[in-house]
Amino acid sequence: MSTIDLYTFTTPNGRKPLIMLEEIGLPYTNHAIDISKGEQFKPEYVAINPNSKIPAMVDRETDLTIFESGAILIYLAEKSGQLLPTAPKNRFQVLQWLMLQMGSIGPMFGQLGHFKHAAPEKIPYAIERYEKETLRLYSVLDGQLTDHTFIADDDYSIADIATYPWVANYERLGLTLDGHPHLKRWVELLQQRPAVQRAMTMSL
Amino acid sequence: MSTIDLYTFTTPNGRKPLIMLEEIGLPYTNHAIDISKGEQFKPEYVAINPNSKIPAMVDRETDLTIFESGAILIYLAEKSGQLLPTAPKNRFQVLQWLMLQMGSIGPMFGQLGHFKHAAPEKIPYAIERYEKETLRLYSVLDGQLTDHTFIADDDYSIADIATYPWVANYERLGLTLDGHPHLKRWVELLQQRPAVQRAMTMSL
Repeated sequence: MSTIDLYTFTTPNGRKPLIMLEEIGLPYTNHAIDISKGEQFKPEYVAINPNSKIPAMVDRETDLTIFESGAILIYLAEKSGQLLPTAPKNRFQVLQWLMLQMGSIGPMFGQLGHFKHAAPEKIPYAIERYEKETLRLYSVLDGQLTDHTFIADDDYSIADIATYPWVANYERLGLTLDGHPHLKRWVELLQQRPAVQRAMTMSL
Repeated sequence: MSTIDLYTFTTPNGRKPLIMLEEIGLPYTNHAIDISKGEQFKPEYVAINPNSKIPAMVDRETDLTIFESGAILIYLAEKSGQLLPTAPKNRFQVLQWLMLQMGSIGPMFGQLGHFKHAAPEKIPYAIERYEKETLRLYSVLDGQLTDHTFIADDDYSIADIATYPWVANYERLGLTLDGHPHLKRWVELLQQRPAVQRAMTMSL
């Protein structure tokens, strides 16, 4: 029986907890919050997440409500004992790269997507600003992946799960990974995981 | 004797670990990384943080190097046993608001600062976009602080420490907290803390 209620949608941040739940095999119930229809502003959702963003999660077993994808990933990792090591050195390698995703990769790639696709006018300065930062972050990841199989180290972790939906989205941003062979290798490696495939193609 | 080497500067993200270290009373050695002179790109700093951002930290006692302010705050909270509760409910309240700061408050307030002060041209669309989002986030915080003393709950935590330097900066963004009385009350409450005062005025 499912005790996890997931409130999410088909965006990069929304795919993160789906990948996680598919990886750890915990039963869950999906509740689509269609942000194209503004459903994140409905009072019943704002009661779950006062920030009106997806995803959010309720664990009825522990009676916890958690918003922000990064916090949900840590919670599910600790609940399942998977994908976040407990040894301090390995644990903080994962947490620092998770924070890099939350603080830079998500917000900056997101701004590039906005100025390329959603803004009503094309603003060259803004597009160039966020494209440059996205490519710089590709290089940071590529550098790390030169001598690590996965982002935090040599074990698959929630840092990979958080980063993957944002990097896999490169075509929508009008970019290529060809100049970043290690990052490209890592994307292809994750694409082969059945849990990632299920989560990335799931309709909501 | 200090075993913590902190690499930081006088920006909102750079003030966070300073507040934390002053609060928990752990001895540390400051290393100023002057980002106005590009010191974050020097090879010896890139070896500590491949993302070339401040802050970063080395704990020589445990031989750990950690970048990203959010990860450093969690590390110091767990090392000291302070400012991050261990009971799951309280712990994830803190972690979700910490993630909100990392993923939205920092990046969005930061973009507003960029387009108001650093961009070579004034772009009304971008200024309006980030000002609207900053004010929306002020309202989210104000709502939470209506019936909570501190951001995560009724105990001071690393969620407050992460958020404070970004909100206290409102004048630089050309904004006021007058329309957000609970947020204003919280800023004034934190301003009274000697550790916050020391960290926010420290020259580097």
